[in-house]
Amino acid sequence: MAFKVGLLGLGTVGTGTAQILLDPAGRHPLLKELEIHRVGVRSPDKPRAVQFPEGVLTADLEAIVSDREIEIVVELIGGLEPARSLILQAIAHGKHVVTANKAVIARHGAEIFTAANEKGVYVMLEASVGGGIPVIQPLKQSLGANRIQSVTGIVNGTTNYILTRMQREGADFGEVLADAQQLGYAEADPTADVDGLDAADKIAILASLAFGGRIDRDRVYAEGIRKVSAADISYAEKLGFTIKLLAIAKRERQNPEHSEDRLQLRVHPTLVPKTHPLASIDGVYNAIFIEGDPIGQVMFYGPGAGAGPTASAVVADLLNVAAVLKTETEPIPHPLIGCSHQHYCSIASMEEVVTRFYVRLLTEDQPGVIGQLGTCFGNHGVSLESVVQTGMRDRLAEIVLVTHDVREGNFNSALADIQTMSAISTIPSLLRVL
Amino acid sequence: MAFKVGLLGLGTVGTGTAQILLDPAGRHPLLKELEIHRVGVRSPDKPRAVQFPEGVLTADLEAIVSDREIEIVVELIGGLEPARSLILQAIAHGKHVVTANKAVIARHGAEIFTAANEKGVYVMLEASVGGGIPVIQPLKQSLGANRIQSVTGIVNGTTNYILTRMQREGADFGEVLADAQQLGYAEADPTADVDGLDAADKIAILASLAFGGRIDRDRVYAEGIRKVSAADISYAEKLGFTIKLLAIAKRERQNPEHSEDRLQLRVHPTLVPKTHPLASIDGVYNAIFIEGDPIGQVMFYGPGAGAGPTASAVVADLLNVAAVLKTETEPIPHPLIGCSHQHYCSIASMEEVVTRFYVRLLTEDQPGVIGQLGTCFGNHGVSLESVVQTGMRDRLAEIVLVTHDVREGNFNSALADIQTMSAISTIPSLLRVL
Ligand SMILES: NC(=O)c1ccc[n+]([C@@H]2O[C@H](COP(=O)([O-])OP(=O)(O)OC[C@H]3O[C@@H](n4cnc5c(N)ncnc54)[C@H](OP(=O)(O)O)[C@@H]3O)[C@@H](O)[C@H]2O)c1
Ligand SMILES: NC(=O)c1ccc[n+]([C@@H]2O[C@H](COP(=O)([O-])OP(=O)(O)OC[C@H]3O[C@@H](n4cnc5c(N)ncnc54)[C@H](OP(=O)(O)O)[C@@H]3O)[C@@H](O)[C@H]2O)c1
Repeated sequence: MAFKVGLLGLGTVGTGTAQILLDPAGRHPLLKELEIHRVGVRSPDKPRAVQFPEGVLTADLEAIVSDREIEIVVELIGGLEPARSLILQAIAHGKHVVTANKAVIARHGAEIFTAANEKGVYVMLEASVGGGIPVIQPLKQSLGANRIQSVTGIVNGTTNYILTRMQREGADFGEVLADAQQLGYAEADPTADVDGLDAADKIAILASLAFGGRIDRDRVYAEGIRKVSAADISYAEKLGFTIKLLAIAKRERQNPEHSEDRLQLRVHPTLVPKTHPLASIDGVYNAIFIEGDPIGQVMFYGPGAGAGPTASAVVADLLNVAAVLKTETEPIPHPLIGCSHQHYCSIASMEEVVTRFYVRLLTEDQPGVIGQLGTCFGNHGVSLESVVQTGMRDRLAEIVLVTHDVREGNFNSALADIQTMSAISTIPSLLRVL
Repeated sequence: MAFKVGLLGLGTVGTGTAQILLDPAGRHPLLKELEIHRVGVRSPDKPRAVQFPEGVLTADLEAIVSDREIEIVVELIGGLEPARSLILQAIAHGKHVVTANKAVIARHGAEIFTAANEKGVYVMLEASVGGGIPVIQPLKQSLGANRIQSVTGIVNGTTNYILTRMQREGADFGEVLADAQQLGYAEADPTADVDGLDAADKIAILASLAFGGRIDRDRVYAEGIRKVSAADISYAEKLGFTIKLLAIAKRERQNPEHSEDRLQLRVHPTLVPKTHPLASIDGVYNAIFIEGDPIGQVMFYGPGAGAGPTASAVVADLLNVAAVLKTETEPIPHPLIGCSHQHYCSIASMEEVVTRFYVRLLTEDQPGVIGQLGTCFGNHGVSLESVVQTGMRDRLAEIVLVTHDVREGNFNSALADIQTMSAISTIPSLLRVL
């Protein structure tokens, strides 16, 4: 008996998924029991890399999500609508859902999982974060013995590709972005990638699984890489760091009065010590670094996008659902596959985050400036790890400094004071340090 | 209703496992349903880091594997016997088994899985490879869409620790081993680790899962790190390589006449290009690098041993079994958890392996030696990528060369010829290159 699958979307990932399902030899034997029943697209007459029998391809996606024979709907059209509505309709018709759509899950996950739990179906999303890298399933299952402390990811291939090239070529953001667009590594509208929004969607999903609560996507701080300059990459390098766009979810221990821990949730360019495993993740590769008790540190590395890798994750989810369908008769949720947390995690404001900072300032070339800076930071409880006058730029003295750990609120008030100092011309760069 | 667990062994990993099970708050909720019913040790009167109610601790391990109330037996005593017999008895009594014992699985896996399949129980082994790193479950499940091409691992923490220190300190094997033994990073009898036998057990297990067949452990080639010298580490470094003990399982495409692919299965010190993700895995950390179609390359990184990490993997298996027990009513094997392949994989001989080589030779300091070497290699179809005379050592000229890909059999016959050349004094090092 075969499990009938309805595919919504036959673009990059849809085609990759179909190619695996149509050629199961040498893969997991359970794949032979999955059958593509219908495929929904916008333009059924477009030429396609995979061929289906007459009648399989359709532009009527609602007919697929309500098709009585279909047990699993795979949503690979992307975007918020009609993806959200189609997923909800599929659930309402009692179908399990597999999706690669981080945007719809990060924004409408609560609604979708509530509906799925009521209906007794699964919504699977391995492909929504880290492309082919198994990370959702390990968080649900293999790391279940752990109290997770932090999840730190390079989860956007486009920005990692741009930063890697900026570092290798000493080039500036604008040039590399333009070239990346030409080569197809960045989209015509690069906003979701370069402004950190895609990474924010993904860390919201990872945090929800790691910390067992729902996440308000609007509370995720997102700062992109547009302001990262070749100069900062080069100074960071000299100080022993590589600049990466990190997505960070971290549990903050609370004072004993508070009953619940709070989460830091933030995406920003970050100076990563070169000895850290994330520092050497280059190009379009992604990696997710997880700290937990008692496991310590683990990292999952692989291709973060692309037809084949993403389809590998989609099909892994299909296998999981098919295995459950084959063996399960008890009511779901299956304790390692379903997703049933209801409460929202409490999220710390950025003012409360404790981190190190890297700052580059341009100052008048006069004696005593470094002393004044040190005093001003000191007054706000900010202690400095290193201060280097790197040379002259535009007839101003350029100073690069790295702080010790400091509460972001304190750091900001120190910076506000420093900006009023007469010797300070501008503060071209301000980056956090891992 | 709680699932009753019988623990065999309360040493490093057993204690770590008990500590997780006795303190489930903040971990996967299903953990609360696992209860340690009995614990078997050699010396029940030894002081222990975890305390159990009267009567839980016993030296009668056979009473545990036959206890009617116990559903899952966790074997953490190690070694071949009595581990093998106890596992088989537990299976015979219809109990699921979780084990961290690579030696018993690599050598007696066929017998154990045959018995388990007949009895309809699971044998789980996440902790047997890579300590806390999830790799068994990803191979069974998350990577199921793929045709796996190769699995390459740094799977022995002791040897990786020794090689990392040799590299950092320029020290020789003997000194670092002695120090590692003193610090507890290497055992008093280091044979299983430094001679590659432990890594061979582990790659046999990974290959079985990756390629879906049984593995004859005796066919795994194992060469340890005793002969790796500080000189070779330093030359390798200059050539852009790091020396690692790799465990490699690789599918070899056969000529069209052969019906089945063959596997390469080998453990040996290897020159790894510094740009390869495995090159930067240092100290006691482990990593498993997997290539598959269509995923491309993925890597799993983390602590390869230790009480907490290994217990994390043991408990992941317990969660998997408990989840199946909660939801499953159909007869097993569960298609993503059970293990049902019957045939043995066909394994290539080392003579047939195609790889690059690194060779260090000491020769008389006379003109034309490099030419003679080149000619001799050329006669056997071995082409050279680089030849460097590095200087003088013991009044002999030292030559380091790296070949292009060559069939190991051809390379060996070239080397046999070279050893008869009058100008050649000795060949102190011979290593493979990834
Ligand atoms: N591409 C990647 O590497 C990657 C990696 C990870 C996750 N993802 C996620 O995977 C999902 C799919 O991405 P993709 O790159 O495969 O997208 P894509 O190449 O743009 O394909 C989209 C598919 O959906 C169909 N479609 C779009 N809107 C539709 C509508 N309103 N009605 C009917 N059909 C519609 C299109 O039909 P036509 O073919 O007729 O135009 C096309 O087949 C997205 O959620 C994305 O974020 C992608
Ligand atoms: N240690 C690690 O980091 C690590 C990592 C990965 C996998 N593993 C695997 O995990 C397993 C356990 O390793 P471990 O380091 O925890 O070993 P261990 O510290 O030596 O503990 C062994 C335990 O088994 C008991 N035991 C041994 N032989 C016994 C016998 N004949 N009868 C009854 N009890 C017996 C011992 O009892 P007493 O306490 O009374 O002596 C002890 O509690 C091994 O298979 C090992 O390869 C270990």
